[in-house]
Amino acid sequence: MGRTDFGAMNCSIARTLDVVGERWALLVLRESFFGTRRFEDFLQRLGIARNVLSDRLDRLVQAGIMRKERYQDRPERFEYRLTEKGIALNDVVLAIKAWGDRWTDSAGNPPTVVRHLDCGQTFEAVPVCSECGGRVHARNVRAEPGPGATADDVAGWEERLEAAAARRASR
Amino acid sequence: MGRTDFGAMNCSIARTLDVVGERWALLVLRESFFGTRRFEDFLQRLGIARNVLSDRLDRLVQAGIMRKERYQDRPERFEYRLTEKGIALNDVVLAIKAWGDRWTDSAGNPPTVVRHLDCGQTFEAVPVCSECGGRVHARNVRAEPGPGATADDVAGWEERLEAAAARRASR
Repeated sequence: MGRTDFGAMNCSIARTLDVVGERWALLVLRESFFGTRRFEDFLQRLGIARNVLSDRLDRLVQAGIMRKERYQDRPERFEYRLTEKGIALNDVVLAIKAWGDRWTDSAGNPPTVVRHLDCGQTFEAVPVCSECGGRVHARNVRAEPGPGATADDVAGWEERLEAAAARRASR
Repeated sequence: MGRTDFGAMNCSIARTLDVVGERWALLVLRESFFGTRRFEDFLQRLGIARNVLSDRLDRLVQAGIMRKERYQDRPERFEYRLTEKGIALNDVVLAIKAWGDRWTDSAGNPPTVVRHLDCGQTFEAVPVCSECGGRVHARNVRAEPGPGATADDVAGWEERLEAAAARRASR
């Protein structure tokens, strides 16, 4: 079985993972949010192999998440900076960090803290509803087909509901 | 160069990626949040190879994110359900979905929507500060060494600051 094309799936999560669903890509982004811009600095801060770093930066540039900008002519040297599309990934990185701070070896003793400059306090990111501002979590949300759902997607939702009903009936 | 052990890095983001930093693992979790529990249902809904699904479920169980529960004796059959640790990953999945809804082919036409049952509206997740409730984004937050930072980590932060100062000086 060949490598599945996540970008071709009709799912916002799969499409996001198609561009950033790889461990090193997300650490390169973390490092970018920490202010790192130059190849040699990424290399040193991440402990990543040169060819892997080069590949991940190229992919992030191709995906429009980073841009490559010349800062020196002779020899030619480039900086890698986040675009608006890349800056928006901060929400994802903060959510990953909040979970890691709570559920991994970091629990109770985070190696890094993040300060909210508006209030001056260190914080963890909490997801709230864009409409009412209330906390959203797994138990008070429900997914359903959206405007971009295909007939297949809708059939998929029906299959999930049927599977759940069959489970209940078999108990 | 062998596969780097992300779990050994002193970073909550790397430690999280060590357990869920893989495309299929996150789609298995998405499917779990959609209510899927059984191996054959994951297989059908995801279009994933049997051996890959088996591997990802085993890893998620080993990481304490899912638990395997027998629901039938002859033949023996199991359900895969999220633990509390797994349920907490909803925050990460919602952040990934919000970005994908905005920045991928899903833009303006999301295949799936999520409804907040408390207010009844479909929403996107917005990260706010746990301390003051204000919106957090890349431009109003700053990372710094936390209580779990090692001397090496602190040196790393100093290197980043020096690199930024050198950049400014060379312009």
